[in-house]
Amino acid sequence: MTDSAPALLAADWGTTNFRLFLFGTDGEIIARHTANIGLKNLGVLTFEQALLSVMKEDFARPDLPILLCGMVGSRTGWQEAPYVHCPAGLPEIVAGIVTAPSDKLRAKIVPGLSAEADHKGLLNVMRGEETQIYGLASKVGDSSYVLPGTHCKWAQVENGIVTGFSSYMTGEMFQVLKRHSILGDLMEDDIDDEAAFLLGVDRALEDKSFLSLVFSVRTEGLFGHIQPESLSSYLSGLLIGSEIRAEIGRHGVRPVGLIGDGTLVNLYERALKHTGFTQITRHDGDDASAAGLWAMAQQGKLI
Amino acid sequence: MTDSAPALLAADWGTTNFRLFLFGTDGEIIARHTANIGLKNLGVLTFEQALLSVMKEDFARPDLPILLCGMVGSRTGWQEAPYVHCPAGLPEIVAGIVTAPSDKLRAKIVPGLSAEADHKGLLNVMRGEETQIYGLASKVGDSSYVLPGTHCKWAQVENGIVTGFSSYMTGEMFQVLKRHSILGDLMEDDIDDEAAFLLGVDRALEDKSFLSLVFSVRTEGLFGHIQPESLSSYLSGLLIGSEIRAEIGRHGVRPVGLIGDGTLVNLYERALKHTGFTQITRHDGDDASAAGLWAMAQQGKLI
Repeated sequence: MTDSAPALLAADWGTTNFRLFLFGTDGEIIARHTANIGLKNLGVLTFEQALLSVMKEDFARPDLPILLCGMVGSRTGWQEAPYVHCPAGLPEIVAGIVTAPSDKLRAKIVPGLSAEADHKGLLNVMRGEETQIYGLASKVGDSSYVLPGTHCKWAQVENGIVTGFSSYMTGEMFQVLKRHSILGDLMEDDIDDEAAFLLGVDRALEDKSFLSLVFSVRTEGLFGHIQPESLSSYLSGLLIGSEIRAEIGRHGVRPVGLIGDGTLVNLYERALKHTGFTQITRHDGDDASAAGLWAMAQQGKLI
Repeated sequence: MTDSAPALLAADWGTTNFRLFLFGTDGEIIARHTANIGLKNLGVLTFEQALLSVMKEDFARPDLPILLCGMVGSRTGWQEAPYVHCPAGLPEIVAGIVTAPSDKLRAKIVPGLSAEADHKGLLNVMRGEETQIYGLASKVGDSSYVLPGTHCKWAQVENGIVTGFSSYMTGEMFQVLKRHSILGDLMEDDIDDEAAFLLGVDRALEDKSFLSLVFSVRTEGLFGHIQPESLSSYLSGLLIGSEIRAEIGRHGVRPVGLIGDGTLVNLYERALKHTGFTQITRHDGDDASAAGLWAMAQQGKLI
């Protein structure tokens, strides 16, 4: 907390979540707020109405500049902010900031990032995560940053520039296989079984075929090698292990910064340690978003 | 069709399907019948009652020996016939045949096969497909046989012996990703787009990470590189291509026999031709099952 005067309202506005920050002139956070106005929960509200609805008490400052990041800048958001292509540093991303259409608010929106994927003409994209990455780059410095989630991202930052990143469908794959495939059938009363998880990681690390390996969740259950309550941990290990295997292939074992908190990030930390990553730092996701929004507002001379 | 006297009743009895054959003494099929008494549709009927319910007209021959294959021999079937481990020829599989508990019928059940998978202690299994493979081995001879489906199998037959096989979750993965993941969101009015399919195959052939590559269904749709009606073909190509890539890695490009019919097998044939497989034969699945049941009945001296 700070005694400095309010200078900026900023928010990470995603499909599900909305996290609002009020910054003082010194860049410290005066107040935080979360609200249930993610894009999928807007209902009949316009973006402007939704934003005004949360600007109460400390946040009742329509006079301040506003900076938004996340899916609010997508094609289905308030105003599309086209992807900026990697390599991109803070000046490049800030050059892509767009103005939201509003008579009442001075709101601007951060673009997402795109990067070459494995095949010619194929791109990876992110929206929202780039702000966390630039935030940590501004505070912590260069690293590879890992953002576990539905579609996990691994981004490389060199000299403050995001040189590239990859996306993995790991989180969503876990959910759909567990809930909707035969692999979930034998699962029961899930526990966090570290041995089963690491067995999955180990097998993924030396694997030849994902479509073949993942089927072992079924056979290991059928033959009673892994108990029903541990099959979920095993599947999780297979998936996170497959992702780490790909990243080691791309960039080798290296220092990584894990962004986020909770169970999933704990699993990534466990798998990374198990596979030879020795320099792992952890960073709060909200703080990273706030740091990125502030860094961009400064760079873009919004404040 | 044949004029020889009836000698054997045999059926492929699976989770969904039931296919009954009446063989003459010369091994020719006198009559065929299908019925809706797959394991999941039995309702209150016992296996014996269900089988008796379809033994009408030509099939009303409770005096004949009966041979059954498929999930009817699983733990949740009529009588478990434990997996026979590869390498296994006709004598070995036949040695694993078990007798079904029945006072009214002389029914026997074929076991499934198990084989080493990629990791120590890990097994692949099949039930029903082994009968098709032995059937074709007895008629067509040695080959690699490919059985597309929910859980596709690739089996190697040398000197009439199934030396090993692999399972791929390809068919089920396609269904769950299309129906339950974000990848299906952009799909619309699916068509069979050969170019999109082969693009998927090509990318899978040179890919580094399944979890990363599969996400390209989303980005290719988002960027308008692949139209909504073609994204399903692209996903299908990625999956079948991943499977073929693994098989080329395991055993190289080789002559293959494709078992089955319909759209899915057409797609496999298209992908195999595209990836350098020049010797591809196609075989009807029902005929393969019938040939296998007959070969096993002879080997086991049931007739």
